[in-house]
Amino acid sequence: MRPVAGVGMIGYAFMGRTHSQAWRSVDAFFDLPLEPAMVALAGRSAEATAQAAAKLGWAHAETDWKRLIARDDVRIVDICTPGDSHAEIAIAALEAGKHVICEKPLANTVAEAEAMAAAARAAAGRGVRAMVAFNYRRVPAVALARQWVAEGRIGAVRHVRAQYLQDWIVDPEFPLVWRLRKDKAGSGALGDIGAHIVDTAEFVTGERLTGVSALTETFVKERPLAEESAGLSAAGGAGRGEVTVDDAALFTARLSGGGLASFEATRFASGRKNAMRIEVNGELGSLAFDFESMNELWFHDHTLAAEEAGFRRVLVTESGHPYAGAWWPPGHGLGYEHTFTHQVKDFIEAIATGATPEPSFDDGLRVQRVLAAVERSAADDSRFTTVEGS
Amino acid sequence: MRPVAGVGMIGYAFMGRTHSQAWRSVDAFFDLPLEPAMVALAGRSAEATAQAAAKLGWAHAETDWKRLIARDDVRIVDICTPGDSHAEIAIAALEAGKHVICEKPLANTVAEAEAMAAAARAAAGRGVRAMVAFNYRRVPAVALARQWVAEGRIGAVRHVRAQYLQDWIVDPEFPLVWRLRKDKAGSGALGDIGAHIVDTAEFVTGERLTGVSALTETFVKERPLAEESAGLSAAGGAGRGEVTVDDAALFTARLSGGGLASFEATRFASGRKNAMRIEVNGELGSLAFDFESMNELWFHDHTLAAEEAGFRRVLVTESGHPYAGAWWPPGHGLGYEHTFTHQVKDFIEAIATGATPEPSFDDGLRVQRVLAAVERSAADDSRFTTVEGS
Amino acid sequence: MRPVAGVGMIGYAFMGRTHSQAWRSVDAFFDLPLEPAMVALAGRSAEATAQAAAKLGWAHAETDWKRLIARDDVRIVDICTPGDSHAEIAIAALEAGKHVICEKPLANTVAEAEAMAAAARAAAGRGVRAMVAFNYRRVPAVALARQWVAEGRIGAVRHVRAQYLQDWIVDPEFPLVWRLRKDKAGSGALGDIGAHIVDTAEFVTGERLTGVSALTETFVKERPLAEESAGLSAAGGAGRGEVTVDDAALFTARLSGGGLASFEATRFASGRKNAMRIEVNGELGSLAFDFESMNELWFHDHTLAAEEAGFRRVLVTESGHPYAGAWWPPGHGLGYEHTFTHQVKDFIEAIATGATPEPSFDDGLRVQRVLAAVERSAADDSRFTTVEGS
Amino acid sequence: MRPVAGVGMIGYAFMGRTHSQAWRSVDAFFDLPLEPAMVALAGRSAEATAQAAAKLGWAHAETDWKRLIARDDVRIVDICTPGDSHAEIAIAALEAGKHVICEKPLANTVAEAEAMAAAARAAAGRGVRAMVAFNYRRVPAVALARQWVAEGRIGAVRHVRAQYLQDWIVDPEFPLVWRLRKDKAGSGALGDIGAHIVDTAEFVTGERLTGVSALTETFVKERPLAEESAGLSAAGGAGRGEVTVDDAALFTARLSGGGLASFEATRFASGRKNAMRIEVNGELGSLAFDFESMNELWFHDHTLAAEEAGFRRVLVTESGHPYAGAWWPPGHGLGYEHTFTHQVKDFIEAIATGATPEPSFDDGLRVQRVLAAVERSAADDSRFTTVEGS
Repeated sequence: MRPVAGVGMIGYAFMGRTHSQAWRSVDAFFDLPLEPAMVALAGRSAEATAQAAAKLGWAHAETDWKRLIARDDVRIVDICTPGDSHAEIAIAALEAGKHVICEKPLANTVAEAEAMAAAARAAAGRGVRAMVAFNYRRVPAVALARQWVAEGRIGAVRHVRAQYLQDWIVDPEFPLVWRLRKDKAGSGALGDIGAHIVDTAEFVTGERLTGVSALTETFVKERPLAEESAGLSAAGGAGRGEVTVDDAALFTARLSGGGLASFEATRFASGRKNAMRIEVNGELGSLAFDFESMNELWFHDHTLAAEEAGFRRVLVTESGHPYAGAWWPPGHGLGYEHTFTHQVKDFIEAIATGATPEPSFDDGLRVQRVLAAVERSAADDSRFTTVEGS
Repeated sequence: MRPVAGVGMIGYAFMGRTHSQAWRSVDAFFDLPLEPAMVALAGRSAEATAQAAAKLGWAHAETDWKRLIARDDVRIVDICTPGDSHAEIAIAALEAGKHVICEKPLANTVAEAEAMAAAARAAAGRGVRAMVAFNYRRVPAVALARQWVAEGRIGAVRHVRAQYLQDWIVDPEFPLVWRLRKDKAGSGALGDIGAHIVDTAEFVTGERLTGVSALTETFVKERPLAEESAGLSAAGGAGRGEVTVDDAALFTARLSGGGLASFEATRFASGRKNAMRIEVNGELGSLAFDFESMNELWFHDHTLAAEEAGFRRVLVTESGHPYAGAWWPPGHGLGYEHTFTHQVKDFIEAIATGATPEPSFDDGLRVQRVLAAVERSAADDSRFTTVEGS
Repeated sequence: MRPVAGVGMIGYAFMGRTHSQAWRSVDAFFDLPLEPAMVALAGRSAEATAQAAAKLGWAHAETDWKRLIARDDVRIVDICTPGDSHAEIAIAALEAGKHVICEKPLANTVAEAEAMAAAARAAAGRGVRAMVAFNYRRVPAVALARQWVAEGRIGAVRHVRAQYLQDWIVDPEFPLVWRLRKDKAGSGALGDIGAHIVDTAEFVTGERLTGVSALTETFVKERPLAEESAGLSAAGGAGRGEVTVDDAALFTARLSGGGLASFEATRFASGRKNAMRIEVNGELGSLAFDFESMNELWFHDHTLAAEEAGFRRVLVTESGHPYAGAWWPPGHGLGYEHTFTHQVKDFIEAIATGATPEPSFDDGLRVQRVLAAVERSAADDSRFTTVEGS
Repeated sequence: MRPVAGVGMIGYAFMGRTHSQAWRSVDAFFDLPLEPAMVALAGRSAEATAQAAAKLGWAHAETDWKRLIARDDVRIVDICTPGDSHAEIAIAALEAGKHVICEKPLANTVAEAEAMAAAARAAAGRGVRAMVAFNYRRVPAVALARQWVAEGRIGAVRHVRAQYLQDWIVDPEFPLVWRLRKDKAGSGALGDIGAHIVDTAEFVTGERLTGVSALTETFVKERPLAEESAGLSAAGGAGRGEVTVDDAALFTARLSGGGLASFEATRFASGRKNAMRIEVNGELGSLAFDFESMNELWFHDHTLAAEEAGFRRVLVTESGHPYAGAWWPPGHGLGYEHTFTHQVKDFIEAIATGATPEPSFDDGLRVQRVLAAVERSAADDSRFTTVEGS
C-alpha cells in the first residue's frame, strides 16, 4: 500500500477546475509513489464552496484557507487563487510544512515573489517542496522540444520567436472585467499570458533572458462597467470605466547564449484563440510549436542535405514521448487539461523522491523579474533594460 | 439529490480505460440528471480484475459478467469486451432490464447484430436503453459537421471521401497478434477502423450507403507468432503463422441521396497514426475533418463570392459548439478521451429522458450490413453489392 | 552557334497559351543543345490566328495545319488541339519527319492511341521523336517523388491515394459547354483530369495499374445550352441540353507491385480548385503531394525512430532538386506554367541526344487503356476489369 | 498599332534575370497600351554582357550605362545594379527624360534616396515616371490583402507581425561574400530583406511606421574569405575576414493608426528559406500571408459568429483577384517571377496614362528612413526612435 498524500485546494474558478481534473485523473494513468486524495477545497462562500467541492470531487469544504492548511489530512496545498493572495498563502503553507503548488504568475510583484522564493528555499531544507504551475511545460510537445534542445539537436540557439495570441477583448464593448484593472490583476496580457511564453522560452532553450526592450499599449482605454464592477466609480462617465492594464505587450530580448528573441502577448489578435507559439532556430536545426495544434512539434533537421530537409510534423503521441506513453496509442491526441495532470504527476514524484520540483519558485521569481524589466523598459522609451539577477 | 445510476463495466483493456475515464469525469463537467457511480468491474482473472478496478476507480470487482449484470446496484452495463462476446452479454443485460452501452463493432456477424438489435427494440418497450459506442460521433468537430449538414449549410451531398489510416503493422516482423486472426477478430482493418468511417459518413450526411464495390488485401501473409499466440500451430513454418484478416480495405459506395463515396481503411499507411478523415462536398459547401487535428473543422462556404471563399479552419472550442462549452475557454483543445465522456453524457441523458440513444443498436446493425456487403463484393470481383436493408 | 529547331504549334486556346510561354522562356533558363524558334502558329480562322500569333509570340500564322507541318523551317510540331484531332495530325507530322509533342489525353479512343503509338515507334526508327504532354510529371516535387521512389526511399508500395478535385461545374446552372458533351470531349472528368492522376501514379511508383473497379456519375443531367452550343437540338427542352459525360469518376485499382490504389476525378468538389493530389505509402516511408501547394513535397521517413518521425514539408526549390536549379534561390517558388517549360526542355534534349522522350506515346496509350477499363468496369456493375496489355 | 516603348536594363545578375523574364512575358498576358521592346542591356564586361544579352533576350549590349541611357530607342531604364550605384544612374536617366524603374533598396543612404526622390518629383513635372521595385506588392495575395484592408474588411489595425526569414548563412563556414560587407552592401538582413517587410507592412495597412525600437546582431563575426573577396586584407587572420553587417534585425514599431508592429529580418532561421510573412490583426478581422505559400491569403472574418469563424485559406487564383485573371484557371498557381511581370505591367500602364507609379521614389525614401531609424535605435540601446518625416 502506498502512502496517501492528502491535497487541499484553494480557489475553484477556471484553474480550480483544471487542477481538480488533474488530481482526479492522475492516479489512473501514472504509477505514482504516493496516492493523492482530494481532501478539501477552500473558498470564501460556504454555499458556493460546498457546491464546487461536490461538483469537482473534493471530500470537504472549508471557508478559510488557514483552516485548510491546518488540516492534518492535508499534505499538499494547491493554490488556485488570483495572484495577489499567492504570497501570503504559499508562505503560510510552506511554514506549516505543506508542499505547495501555486498557480502562475508566482505573485503580482517582484517583492512578493522574492519572499515566496526565499520561503521555498527555506522549506526545501526541511524536505518541503514548492512548485509554480507553468503548465505549458507539461505539454508533451513542449517537453520534447526541451529534451531535443538539451540533447544538442538544434545546436547553438540563434532565435526565439514566441507569441501568445488571444482575441477575447477585441470588441470595444466587452466589459471592464477585473482582469482589465491593475488593482486586481497586476497587469494585463503581459502577466497573464506573457508570463507563459517567457517561462516556455527559458525552459525550452535552457537559457535566460538577460535584457529586454518593450512596447506596451492599451488600445481600448474605456469599457462598459461589468456587472461585477458595479461598485466602481465610473471614471469614464456614465457606465464606463478606465482600462488600467496593457492590452498587448511586445518585447525583444537577448538570450544568455547570445541569441535574439521576440515576444508578443496580446488579447487583440482577432481569430487567434489561444495561440501560445514558440519557434527556436538553432545552428543545427529548428523547432516550432503552436498550442492550437498542441499534439504536434515541428522539427527541421539542418544537418540533413538541403534537398531532403524540411519542417517535420512530429505527432507527439508515441509511447517514447514525454508523458504520452501513459495515455493512448499513437495518433490519439491529448487536450489542454492533460498538462495539469502531468504537472501534479511530476510534483508528486518530486515530493516522494525529495527532488526539487521544476519550475521552482526561483523559476517563477525569474519570470517575474523579466516582466518587471518589460514594464520598466516600456516606461523608459523602450530602452534596453537588464533583467535583475540575470 | 439526483438519483444514482450505478455502472458496471465488463473488460478493462484499451476501451475499458477510455470508458473508465469517461465515467470518472463526466459528472464534474456536465450537469446530469442522474449521478453515475462506478460500481463494479468484471473480468476473468480475480487478481488482474481487482488490480484494474483499483487503478481505474471501480468500487468492486467481479469475475463473472453474469454476476455483474445481476447486481442490484448496477443499472447500466458497459461492454468493453472483444466483439465475439457482445451479443451474449448485451442480450442478457437488456433482458435483465439494464441499460447497455456496447463497444463497436456491434458484433462479429450480421446475425448476432440482428439479434442484438431485436433485443434492444424489445427492451425499449420496457424503458431500457441501448447504445453502440461509435465514439467519433462525439468529437465536437464531427458533431458540428453533422449539425451544419442537417441545417443545409452544404446542400445536396455529392461526395464523401472517408479514410481511416494507421501504420502499426507496416513492419512485416510485427507479430501475429489476435487482431490479425479472423477466428478472434472477425476481420482486420475493415471491422476495426472501417466500421468507424462507415458510421461517421452516415452520421454526418444523414444518408445511407446503398451499395458498395470493394477491394481488400493482406500484404503480409505470414508473421512471427506473438507470445500470446504461442499455442497456435505454426501454419507458416517454424515460428510463423498465417494472417487471416485484411490489412486494408478500399471501397466505393453510392449514397441514398445520389452522391458517391470512397472509403479506405488500412494499417499500412506509413506515417499516418490515427488519421480518421472525412470530407463531404456538397452543392453549397464542403466540410473536412482529420482526427489527427481533432479540434478543427474545415468549412468551405460555396455561397460566398469565389474571390472570398476558401476552406476555413474552425477551432471547435467555442462555448456554442457541441460539448465544448462544458470544458475550457476557446482555443484550449480537447483530446481523444473526451469523445467517450461525451458519449456517456448523452447516454445518461437519454436514459433519464426516455429518448432513444444514438447510435442505436439498429445503427450498429446497419454498419455491420455495410461491412458484410464489402466482404461479399471483395469476394465477388468487386462487383457492386447492395447493402441489405438499405 | 547551336542549331535552331523551329517549332510550329497547332491550337492556341488554354494549352496553346501555356505551351507558348514555355517555348518563349525555356532558352533563357536552361542551356539547351538546340535553339528553339517560335516559327508558326496554325488555327482555322485567319484573323484570330494572326492575332493569337502576335499576342503569343509566333512569327507566322497558318490556317491549315498541313501547311504548318510542311514548312521546312518547322522541325517540331506541338499539338494543342482537342483530342479528336490528335491522331490525324500527329501521325501526319511524324510521317513528315517532324518531332511531335502532343497534348493529353493522347487520343479520344484506344484505337486512335494505338495508331499513334505505332506511328511513334516507326518514326523513332528514323530518329523522329514523340512525346505526350502529361505536364504534371514536370512539377519539381512530382519529379522528386519519382526519384525518391526509384531510389528505394519508401520501399515496397502498399498504397496510392490519388485525387484530382475541381469544382467549376458545381452550379447546376453552369452551361452545357463542349467539355460536357461526349461527342466533343470523349469523356468528362475521367479523361480530362483522371488521365493525369493515372499517369502520375504510374510515373511516381514506376508500376502499372493492372485492373480497376469503377463508379461514375453525372450529378446534373441537364444544363442550360451554352452560347457556343446554340445549334444543338435542345434535348432537355427549351434552352436545356443533356450532359453526356461523367461529372465524377471513382475507381480502385491493383498495382503491378501488389499495392492497392484509389482514384477520384471530379468537378464537384466544392472549394477544391485544382487539387491534383497523390500520396504513396510504402514499407519504408511515404510521400504526399497536392498541386494547390505545388512547391512542396511531404516525406515521411519510416526508418527513423517513431519518436522522431513525421511528415516533412520539403520545399522543392533547392538547386539540387529537379529543374529547380535553373530558376531562383531556395524558397522562391515556381508556378503552373513552369511544368510546361520543363517539358519542352526535356523534349529538346531528347531530340538532340536521340533519347526516347518520356512520357512516350506508348505511355499515353497505356493511360488510355486504363481509362477504357474504367469505363468498362463502370458499365459492368463495377466489376474488376483488367487493363489491356498490363 | 501600339507605340513601342524600348527598354534598357543595367545589370544582369539575379534581379536582371527576374526583370528580363518580366519584360519577355508581360505582353503575352496583359493588354498593354505600349509595346515593350527589350532593346539593350548594359554591363561592364563586353563579353559577359553580350552573352547575358543573348541568353536573356536583349537585342543589344552596352558596356557603359551612360550610352544605354543616351540611346534614342530606349524610353525606359531598368536599374538592376547594387544599391551604391542607384542614385547616380537613376538621376541621370530621369534628367535624360527616361522613365526609371529601380531595384530596392532605393539607395544605400538616406541622403542618396532623398536626392533620387527629389529628381523623381522634378521629372514627374515633365511627364517622366519613376518607380522603386518592391516586387512583393505584386504578389496577388499581398495585393488582395491591401485591397481588403482598404475596403475596411478588417477594421482598425491593432497588430502587424512581419517576418522575413532565411537561412542561407547559418553555416559559420559560409564565405564572406560581398553581401556580408558593409562597404559593399550597406547593411545585412536589414536592408536586403527587412526593407521588403517594412514596405509590405506600410502597403498593406496603408499606414506609416512612426517610430521603432531595434536590436541587431552579427552572430558569426568572422568568415572564410570568399573567392570574390581574395583581395581583402584578412582581418580575422589567415583566410578569414570580418563580417561587417547585421545577420539579423528585430524591431518593434508604432503605426500611424495606433497599432503595434513587430518586425524580424534574419538569415539565421534554419529551415526557413524565403519566409516573407505578414499578419495583420484588426478589429473586424485578420489577414495572414507567407511567401513560401505565395498563392494563399488567410482571412479571418471577425464579424461572423464565433462558432463559424476561422482563418480561411483563399487561393488567390480567381479571375477576380488582382493580376490573376491574366494567367491560368483557378487553382493553377503563380511563382516568384510573376511579381516582376505584374510590376512592369503596372509601370507601363502608369507611363501610358500619366499616373504616378507606386511604389514611388518617395515610398522608397520612406522605407530608407525607417531603416535608418532602426540602425539609430540599435546603436542607442534600443531606444524608441522616431522615423524622420513620419
